[in-house]
Amino acid sequence: MTTDEQQIRQLIATWMSACNAGDTPAVLTLMTDDVVFLRPGHPPMIGKQTFAAAATPPPNSPAPQIDGTSDIQEIQVLGDWAFMWSKLVVTITPPNGAAPMRRAGHTLTIFKKEAGRWLLARDANMLVAV
Amino acid sequence: MTTDEQQIRQLIATWMSACNAGDTPAVLTLMTDDVVFLRPGHPPMIGKQTFAAAATPPPNSPAPQIDGTSDIQEIQVLGDWAFMWSKLVVTITPPNGAAPMRRAGHTLTIFKKEAGRWLLARDANMLVAV
Repeated sequence: MTTDEQQIRQLIATWMSACNAGDTPAVLTLMTDDVVFLRPGHPPMIGKQTFAAAATPPPNSPAPQIDGTSDIQEIQVLGDWAFMWSKLVVTITPPNGAAPMRRAGHTLTIFKKEAGRWLLARDANMLVAV
Repeated sequence: MTTDEQQIRQLIATWMSACNAGDTPAVLTLMTDDVVFLRPGHPPMIGKQTFAAAATPPPNSPAPQIDGTSDIQEIQVLGDWAFMWSKLVVTITPPNGAAPMRRAGHTLTIFKKEAGRWLLARDANMLVAV
């Protein structure tokens, strides 16, 4: 039997590997329906369906290769909610042979346990180009 | 008797007016000792004392005038913890007569109730120049 913190760490590992594989359907199973993504310089992205629409590449358009690693700094479990902050580094390699872009920074994330399963519920992503 | 949500809204109102007044000692009473501030492009600022050192202007150096307004989008209370995300707009007017700078964006903030009093505990600030 795993603790809530272990389950959240596993959720993040699954999230990162699904993102790295470009597997949007898998990523969508890891968030609440009312998820909110916040980023600098962008309007809030609210709801799983909005994420799905933004994450789906156009037909016949190869997706960039994404390689991200999350270094968790703190997890606190608060009953059926939890929060985490982490240091995230992501390398994005465009499909057209252009130079890879590297982005790094911190995230502050809130999780919710629904039907016994931890899901990502709110996320502040502070990555900048490095 | 006020609800926890009302107390958190009052904390934010007090925080904004103390910041706008440049009253660092008052702002310091509104955060936990282990507070963490996260921003794009900056290392994490960890602990009340680190905040105090960074917020105190050098002697005989006039502070900029700060005028910020927070538009709260969501507050959820989770027992003795809570989270909020808000839209924040801040105008910073340098003391030397230079043009004011305007910054806007979102914040994701975590609060903790200690000894019956809500305090700011973790903060992700995604403001950018506008």
